[in-house]
Amino acid sequence: MKTRAAVLRDTGQPFEITELELDEPKAGEVLIRYVAAGLCHSDEHLRHGDIVPQFPIVGGHEGAGIIEKVGPGVTRLQPGDHVVCSFLPVCGHCRWCSTGKSNLCDMGASILVGNLPDGTFRFHDAEGNDYGGMCMLGTFSERAVISENSAVKVDPDLPLDKVVLIGCGVPTGWGSAVHAAATEPGDTIVIYGIGGIGINSVQGAALAGARNVIAVDPLPNKREAAEQLGATHSCETAEEAQELVQELTRGVGADKAIITVGVVDAKVVTDAVNTIRKGGTAVITGLADPTKNNIELSSSLLTLFEKTVKGSLFGSGDPFHDIPKMIELYQSGDLKLDELITKTYTLDQVNEGYEDLVNGKNIRGVIVFDTPPLEGTPA
Amino acid sequence: MKTRAAVLRDTGQPFEITELELDEPKAGEVLIRYVAAGLCHSDEHLRHGDIVPQFPIVGGHEGAGIIEKVGPGVTRLQPGDHVVCSFLPVCGHCRWCSTGKSNLCDMGASILVGNLPDGTFRFHDAEGNDYGGMCMLGTFSERAVISENSAVKVDPDLPLDKVVLIGCGVPTGWGSAVHAAATEPGDTIVIYGIGGIGINSVQGAALAGARNVIAVDPLPNKREAAEQLGATHSCETAEEAQELVQELTRGVGADKAIITVGVVDAKVVTDAVNTIRKGGTAVITGLADPTKNNIELSSSLLTLFEKTVKGSLFGSGDPFHDIPKMIELYQSGDLKLDELITKTYTLDQVNEGYEDLVNGKNIRGVIVFDTPPLEGTPA
Repeated sequence: MKTRAAVLRDTGQPFEITELELDEPKAGEVLIRYVAAGLCHSDEHLRHGDIVPQFPIVGGHEGAGIIEKVGPGVTRLQPGDHVVCSFLPVCGHCRWCSTGKSNLCDMGASILVGNLPDGTFRFHDAEGNDYGGMCMLGTFSERAVISENSAVKVDPDLPLDKVVLIGCGVPTGWGSAVHAAATEPGDTIVIYGIGGIGINSVQGAALAGARNVIAVDPLPNKREAAEQLGATHSCETAEEAQELVQELTRGVGADKAIITVGVVDAKVVTDAVNTIRKGGTAVITGLADPTKNNIELSSSLLTLFEKTVKGSLFGSGDPFHDIPKMIELYQSGDLKLDELITKTYTLDQVNEGYEDLVNGKNIRGVIVFDTPPLEGTPA
Repeated sequence: MKTRAAVLRDTGQPFEITELELDEPKAGEVLIRYVAAGLCHSDEHLRHGDIVPQFPIVGGHEGAGIIEKVGPGVTRLQPGDHVVCSFLPVCGHCRWCSTGKSNLCDMGASILVGNLPDGTFRFHDAEGNDYGGMCMLGTFSERAVISENSAVKVDPDLPLDKVVLIGCGVPTGWGSAVHAAATEPGDTIVIYGIGGIGINSVQGAALAGARNVIAVDPLPNKREAAEQLGATHSCETAEEAQELVQELTRGVGADKAIITVGVVDAKVVTDAVNTIRKGGTAVITGLADPTKNNIELSSSLLTLFEKTVKGSLFGSGDPFHDIPKMIELYQSGDLKLDELITKTYTLDQVNEGYEDLVNGKNIRGVIVFDTPPLEGTPA
């Protein structure tokens, strides 16, 4: 069948809207009609060239939609099911899945190639060339064929254009505070960068009972959103935050810091490590060009004060456990999603959406599709 | 009273043996006659200028000896007690001591000034100038007045010229594997640098049941010692180690890496982070000039593979718990100390000892004193 998709062909090029051929689902795979796709910073890294995927690739790794067909052997899903896609697949049986670290599933190794688990591709152009899907999803497309290991079934009455954020940004941020930083009641936490990740770090830290949740962002709209969603304080600069932490903690320092800025640089990491207390932890969730050493630190700063710097992927949680949990928190009102989405776009507006992201206009932008269902499948 | 001591007067200068005046112990303090002092790399950092203490300072922070006098209010020690000094004092009541992190005790803040906890000094010269003691100890001296919070009582039949190493190097290395890296049975651990710390990381990892303990050091005498004390493999370079780890773990990577090299540089940290598996931890114990950013890393390497880099001080253990525990392990034969000490020196040979250290001649060198007891005190 045909599908319209936003494709990246090379580093530094904008998304190109094109029509692709989509194969039928094979064993363990499902055909999904995307209802919504989030504009997350990682695709901007691909567009901008910080991270180089295998080109050409269909963008998009936050998606929610409706299953229209299932391939042979698929048991956990059936046509008509509503799903949130996990940007990391979970095979269930590798050494990481077997030990409660399914965010590190070996199947995730090809998320920047975008093939399906059997090593082949379902997106092709008219000349028969293969196209990967970002994170094996390619959610900037009307439809895609994805592994059943990438899709978590959710209640059909949920607004897919809101819960779509639970595919990447929400668990990455929420979990960075709850799992990776292991926020404890009474903690003082500094969160650098209030974008799609940081705003959810704020929500996670607040729900975990942090006494002081300090949001750091140069943009007033970001700081305002943070304060509305649980930040007790907000600051424009890291220097202000450090001063505030000294005052709030009587000179002890913050228990934890979370670095969620879109482009991690040496200064923010040093600022964070200097702001945490002895024995404190700085968590990094943001990506950057992996070929460049963007962290510069003094090892003595880590050793003498026994500090930890750790990376966190998918908020260090387990996608098939954390996505349902966050859905429940959304349903109970403990996790806000509607408030995060400050603008929606059509698929054709994807480049505009990323310009807005780069310019800090939105907390979150979301593409909403109005693709009609396949004939004979549930709406 | 008088005491002969090895003093550093300025950066880059050798130790000068001089006679100092030593005050009587005040409240909470004890007079110790040092029987042995370890030549640990941190004093070399002071001598060389990587780390700048408050000058002048009596060197030495590994010490064991006999208590000759106690000041007012001292209850845990009495004259004649044999003690091992902890290079970090433990006040017992600050926020860190109260929470099982006494290696971070606030009293440790002045270890590079070397004053006693009340803020004053017990070492002086004939002109009345104050001299600090490295780590509030100054073990390169016949006698010193130290806080009772720096001294752990041990059985009188123990050889003080061996257990002296339990004041810094042994717990720092042993704990880096056991506490900081949290070695589990079956783990694969790479230890970079087999000096006074690394050799004990090897012992800790082996006792914790690591399947593969890989010791990396360019010097053959270090590699040989590592293999004798529990390393299952040894390598000359980090590249060899990485290749070996790939082979031993079928491409998964090492569970943990421990960086104990005397001078931490960017390459060894990158090598270690590249050698550990997804979700793995690299522990840094070595010091370096704290004003220089000697770590350079890609944050994406941490985030995408959820890796952790953490500093460890005193092996992340509690001195008043871990020193007695390691004494017991020495007594049971599970921890080797005699085998570590490859040369002994007199106080006057302190600079020669550090030349040998810099040249990698010893696993550990120790100063042994033959100071006669004060009249009227136990031998």
